[in-house]
Amino acid sequence: MTNKKVILDLDTGIDDAMALAYAVAAPGLDLIGVASSYGNLVAEGAAENSLKILELVGHTDIPVYVGETHPSTSDHFDRLPVSAHIHGENGIGDVELPTPKRKPEKQGAVDFMIESAHKYGKDLIIIPTGALTNVAAAIKKDPAIVDLIGNVTLMGGALTVQGNVSPFAEANISQDAEAANEVFTSPLHDTMVGLDVTLRTLLTKKETQQWRDLGTNAGAKFADIVDYYIDIYAELYPHLDGCSLHDPLAVGVAEDPSFVRTLDIDMIVNTDKEKYGRTIGDNTRLDDPNPSVSAAIEVDADRYLETFMNYLTNLFKNNQ
Amino acid sequence: MTNKKVILDLDTGIDDAMALAYAVAAPGLDLIGVASSYGNLVAEGAAENSLKILELVGHTDIPVYVGETHPSTSDHFDRLPVSAHIHGENGIGDVELPTPKRKPEKQGAVDFMIESAHKYGKDLIIIPTGALTNVAAAIKKDPAIVDLIGNVTLMGGALTVQGNVSPFAEANISQDAEAANEVFTSPLHDTMVGLDVTLRTLLTKKETQQWRDLGTNAGAKFADIVDYYIDIYAELYPHLDGCSLHDPLAVGVAEDPSFVRTLDIDMIVNTDKEKYGRTIGDNTRLDDPNPSVSAAIEVDADRYLETFMNYLTNLFKNNQ
Repeated sequence: MTNKKVILDLDTGIDDAMALAYAVAAPGLDLIGVASSYGNLVAEGAAENSLKILELVGHTDIPVYVGETHPSTSDHFDRLPVSAHIHGENGIGDVELPTPKRKPEKQGAVDFMIESAHKYGKDLIIIPTGALTNVAAAIKKDPAIVDLIGNVTLMGGALTVQGNVSPFAEANISQDAEAANEVFTSPLHDTMVGLDVTLRTLLTKKETQQWRDLGTNAGAKFADIVDYYIDIYAELYPHLDGCSLHDPLAVGVAEDPSFVRTLDIDMIVNTDKEKYGRTIGDNTRLDDPNPSVSAAIEVDADRYLETFMNYLTNLFKNNQ
Repeated sequence: MTNKKVILDLDTGIDDAMALAYAVAAPGLDLIGVASSYGNLVAEGAAENSLKILELVGHTDIPVYVGETHPSTSDHFDRLPVSAHIHGENGIGDVELPTPKRKPEKQGAVDFMIESAHKYGKDLIIIPTGALTNVAAAIKKDPAIVDLIGNVTLMGGALTVQGNVSPFAEANISQDAEAANEVFTSPLHDTMVGLDVTLRTLLTKKETQQWRDLGTNAGAKFADIVDYYIDIYAELYPHLDGCSLHDPLAVGVAEDPSFVRTLDIDMIVNTDKEKYGRTIGDNTRLDDPNPSVSAAIEVDADRYLETFMNYLTNLFKNNQ
């Protein structure tokens, strides 16, 4: 049994669904729970989608916790029309999955993170694939956890490339730049898996056809879900040859950091209007011998894709 | 004799003066000429300062060529008051040096670059430490040179850190972002030595005192010039412990690329008003197996500083 205890923090989301499948399939990760966040859709909907996906792949032993329902600086969250366009109205490519038999836990995601930080300490990796609101709320509620948790391996940000919601900002970070700045500037060690590497890690219908060819329900449903995403990518990003494996790459890096090459650097997240959500090096701390962020800047996309396909194909093969 | 033929393209400038001293002292570089550019001061003044510095260190065999006198998109250049503040009214810390015995060559810097590209091909490295106007003008006048020149190793840009003239832009690039974009997006291979590494490479009065202690004219004058710069840095950048070795680091990397760790990435330079002069990855070419830019993101500052001090101290020691 691996000692890497993992909490996924998902706004489930098509690539979040793939991240969830990757995490349950990865032998090097022990997925102890799934938090939900707003973003691609509302937090309650994200939790329901996580329950649906876990049922689809036969892992109904993993608890799901509802997280913060809106950014730290707001009292509400309005889903952007573009999110419904990219992920489908229901968040999972408008593919129908049965109403899940389980419900989310009564405990909230933030309390679950705090409890797990005290229980597992350095063995705990939190993997947020949406806004950093839950992690920032957990730090605010119990500041001691910054010295306990092993790592936050997040999908988000853009350091050496342009953003995807503005020339500066990546979508997850820009959902709540204030929360992201709290996390980035805390002593907690972050591994940033941003657009720098996820835009280079692509999946095509050649791969989803392999899932379809398995003849299983899980394979067919996942192929339908991801094909929806690939079609949207072809429309929005015609220069990319496939859809980006944003969120599952973060899970991959949590299990095997050697998939990426990182730059160790203290970072800040801009919160002013002009450059809201920009993730950039902190010029006032360039002499820090122990920066708190490792930003992924290069990726072995071929080896990652091979692992991704091995994990997910095996998982779907065994779920009729 | 090394086969690395080098043209420095300087807006001389205090750190440009150090770059020039480094280049004449470096055994791995054959400095075939010095171009001048506007920026820290006007191009004619930069040429005169280069002639003065060459005379001070006893290398009056190296020709100096006046370059473009204003940005590619303008018909004039107004020196910024901040440039006079940082480099002194005369560009070299208001230290008086004798009127040089030589004059600049009649041939212009752009034609000298083109001629040298045809003569030396891949052995030629151009090292601009100011605006990229001269290099862009050379490419415009003779596009064939992009396939001839070995490398452009430039001091400029900021990829993983914030700019120094705006949150996005570094000073040299922002002098002429259009020219910089021409150079960055041409097939010419660029090594970008930007603020990412130069802000981590610092010189203090402890080092300049070693030059002073030599008891030579060259040592005393250089100590005076650089002490002016160190005092300005203490005023403008109190969080840095010394002055940045911006321009001489580019020369160091041209001789020994192992001083820095680079990220190979195709880049663009933004030319719109909002983010004028931002140097950033080109998201439309992330799948290019042979990017045209190597951006320096980490530096072995200790080893570089040791080499810098060996070279310059030996040079000043031998010039009474």
